[in-house]
Amino acid sequence: MTNDATASQANDRATNLGVNVTPEDDFAQWYQDIIAKAQLAENGPVRGTMVVRPYAWRIWELMQRSLDDMFKETGHENAYFPVLIPKSYITREAEHVEGFAPELWEVTRGGNKDLEEPAVVRPTSETIIGEMMSKWINSHRDLPMLLNQWCSVMRWERRPRLFLRTSEFNWQEGHTAHADRDDAMRETLQMLDVYETFSYRDMAIPCVKGEKVPSERFPGADNTFTVEAMMRDGKALQNGTSHYLGTSFAEAFNIRYQNKDNVAELCHTTSWGSTTRMIGSIIMAHGDEKGLVVPPRLAPHQVVFIPMRWDKEPHVLDEAERLAKELRAAGIRVHVDKRDQRPGFKHNDWELKGAPLRVELGPRDLEEGNVVVAQRLFQEAKESVAVADLVADVPARLERYHEQLLQRATEFRDANTKQVDTWDEFVEQVKTGWASVFYDGTEETEQKIKEATSATPRCIPSAFPEEQGTCFVTGKPSAFGKRVIFARAY
Amino acid sequence: MTNDATASQANDRATNLGVNVTPEDDFAQWYQDIIAKAQLAENGPVRGTMVVRPYAWRIWELMQRSLDDMFKETGHENAYFPVLIPKSYITREAEHVEGFAPELWEVTRGGNKDLEEPAVVRPTSETIIGEMMSKWINSHRDLPMLLNQWCSVMRWERRPRLFLRTSEFNWQEGHTAHADRDDAMRETLQMLDVYETFSYRDMAIPCVKGEKVPSERFPGADNTFTVEAMMRDGKALQNGTSHYLGTSFAEAFNIRYQNKDNVAELCHTTSWGSTTRMIGSIIMAHGDEKGLVVPPRLAPHQVVFIPMRWDKEPHVLDEAERLAKELRAAGIRVHVDKRDQRPGFKHNDWELKGAPLRVELGPRDLEEGNVVVAQRLFQEAKESVAVADLVADVPARLERYHEQLLQRATEFRDANTKQVDTWDEFVEQVKTGWASVFYDGTEETEQKIKEATSATPRCIPSAFPEEQGTCFVTGKPSAFGKRVIFARAY
Repeated sequence: MTNDATASQANDRATNLGVNVTPEDDFAQWYQDIIAKAQLAENGPVRGTMVVRPYAWRIWELMQRSLDDMFKETGHENAYFPVLIPKSYITREAEHVEGFAPELWEVTRGGNKDLEEPAVVRPTSETIIGEMMSKWINSHRDLPMLLNQWCSVMRWERRPRLFLRTSEFNWQEGHTAHADRDDAMRETLQMLDVYETFSYRDMAIPCVKGEKVPSERFPGADNTFTVEAMMRDGKALQNGTSHYLGTSFAEAFNIRYQNKDNVAELCHTTSWGSTTRMIGSIIMAHGDEKGLVVPPRLAPHQVVFIPMRWDKEPHVLDEAERLAKELRAAGIRVHVDKRDQRPGFKHNDWELKGAPLRVELGPRDLEEGNVVVAQRLFQEAKESVAVADLVADVPARLERYHEQLLQRATEFRDANTKQVDTWDEFVEQVKTGWASVFYDGTEETEQKIKEATSATPRCIPSAFPEEQGTCFVTGKPSAFGKRVIFARAY
Repeated sequence: MTNDATASQANDRATNLGVNVTPEDDFAQWYQDIIAKAQLAENGPVRGTMVVRPYAWRIWELMQRSLDDMFKETGHENAYFPVLIPKSYITREAEHVEGFAPELWEVTRGGNKDLEEPAVVRPTSETIIGEMMSKWINSHRDLPMLLNQWCSVMRWERRPRLFLRTSEFNWQEGHTAHADRDDAMRETLQMLDVYETFSYRDMAIPCVKGEKVPSERFPGADNTFTVEAMMRDGKALQNGTSHYLGTSFAEAFNIRYQNKDNVAELCHTTSWGSTTRMIGSIIMAHGDEKGLVVPPRLAPHQVVFIPMRWDKEPHVLDEAERLAKELRAAGIRVHVDKRDQRPGFKHNDWELKGAPLRVELGPRDLEEGNVVVAQRLFQEAKESVAVADLVADVPARLERYHEQLLQRATEFRDANTKQVDTWDEFVEQVKTGWASVFYDGTEETEQKIKEATSATPRCIPSAFPEEQGTCFVTGKPSAFGKRVIFARAY
């Protein structure tokens, strides 16, 4: 450790930007503290709404870019549909209205007059997109129609929690129409795979891919699929869902096409979505007592330079800017922190915000041809690195950081997932993790489990083997031909 | 002209996707026809709302990418603020409420209950962002605060027109806070320059940059600046506006900072915006009797390949895909049209949609080592180009296409802008173009002009020389120290 670094550590002790509770002590409070202190988001003035601050919004932009590239590669086009939907549209599909009616935000006045028909702020856009698809689709030549929209939606929330449950949230919603079930199901599963890839590759979160049981389906869907991630408190969070909607929306909105024999047929539709709750997922899957840990591929700043004493020795800043420029040319997102604050403050601040690598440049280290690279995932938290090696070194360091994060999260998930076959074991297991069980598949059994433990069926994992067993609650034969994962969930 | 091309021309005659009226005959109808037939947008079910279809949304995405890069380069960060704003916020700034109250869309119910306080769908976000800035800004160290948001806003429209005036439209809104007037004004003018650069460089539209007269200012602004573009019917369209808001929103929302002497001072704020009406601008500035003409830098597909007879000769498609891949590697956006349609249909369709270059690949041409490149801006509409030269040739062709578009629009604007000094000349000039006049700067005179001619003051151009004159209406001394441009406007 050099003199510059020692001086910075003294500053570290003098400032405390960190969170005051550990995730172990009070996970919910720790989550709130992180969001407030890392300046990620705060409550908006209208009940349950959220202001997403720039650092978190940048994470969302990087998520958007990566997902959108995959959507385009798989042939989808973005479009934009109105934020207001006639209230009557929502009622056209029976299950859909049952699911969404209690959550609607209603617009009743416009231009200082009562509206003839009330409108709702979109809770999701199956209905209005269905209405438009019925106009746009005529022939089998128009299929498949592969659309996606980036927007915000609104659903009334009784107990809002930032990123996890807010009245308004940002998301993407894919909507596609196909000639038959096979093509629609292929699409549904393809987009589920996109979410899975995104989770591992970009979020460094090992998810479990599978199908939802009937009670957990999207209102109006024939099948709902999900990728579920484990948070550090053992609860599950759904990072993306993909729905095969059968012909129910096509019937409700008259989405038909002429087949090759000029016979009118109903389309089969799908929808799939992922939201800003993935930011909550990153906080809760990777964060620690020092703050947020952002996976490198989604980090607003992959490397933060903290130049020291540059007010007196301006060449330190010059060197920081030179290295930043070289790294940017290599495709790395770099930030040079020139705030009028002490290095100790900056170290804590960037640790709190979870920037993967911090590079400290001090005049004495630079004289010796070195900088100090700091990160918190590995044993050796601070390392001296030769200036000459830094630019070539950073990409591999970021890659190792990603791998380490993913490995840590995978080990955590595996250590906290357990096959259980008795009620007592189950009750214990879902206090801190996931339980993989045989159950009879009835809503009565689900209800009983939920009341006693708050756990719900998360998914029937695609990777689980086909097997039959006995319901751990009722002793009846198991449903779905597989074990099912139960957990408390966000 | 080769055999393949002749065959395709025969097909051209057989299909007609084109618009039925010319811009000269009926500009308003022509505009609507283009939007419908090129599948750009259509009306949504709720009054005045708009569905933006994929081709137009892709243009918007390219606009967003280009503008957003410039915003980030100039130090701005994106954030997201709620779509619903408490109605009371709007009333806090006196001019603001006067301007927006008649246009509000009101949300009165949520979760099946009446809301305690009604909310409005944001018509613009000065108020809610002002409220948040007042919490986030404490010290001079927090300034400048440079934010931007991409979202949609809603304003009641009596006479909606797609892209130009819709109840909901998509836009970006920049909002910044500064320590003093100088810094805020520097920002206001910097962002105006960004819009000017975008207009010339990306839209190929020569705009006139200048200040708005007081009656045309944003409600609550001290100064409003604009970039105005001329449409092919001689009317003006504002492609972007930038406002210096003084301290009026800072007073209304208590946005203050401690200066270096620890004295609390009011911030000076700015806002600036550009919208999807720029798509309308592209249609009306460049379009012709055959359809849309999209400037290359904003074209969803810069080059469209139309392979011929590839059902029988699959090597034609292979060659198209090979060339497309090479062009994509060179950063060109390429589309290979594999629809089950005749080449003539495709030619008309891509002409209608204004793709800059169409490349026709036929088996006989390919045998001779050639393809046919078609575009409609130059005399030689179709040219035979050696396959070996195509990839190297395309970037320069696109550049020439851009230059040609910009030159044509500039010549049109200049030919239709005239200094006039008498009422009769004025009345004639604003029928088909812009009039540059001395006027006394009073609202009475503006009103008289508007009632007689529909023309309004568009801007006091920055580039105009300082000069004094006599009002062409009242004979009084002219205001603003310059000539002012009047025109009918969208």
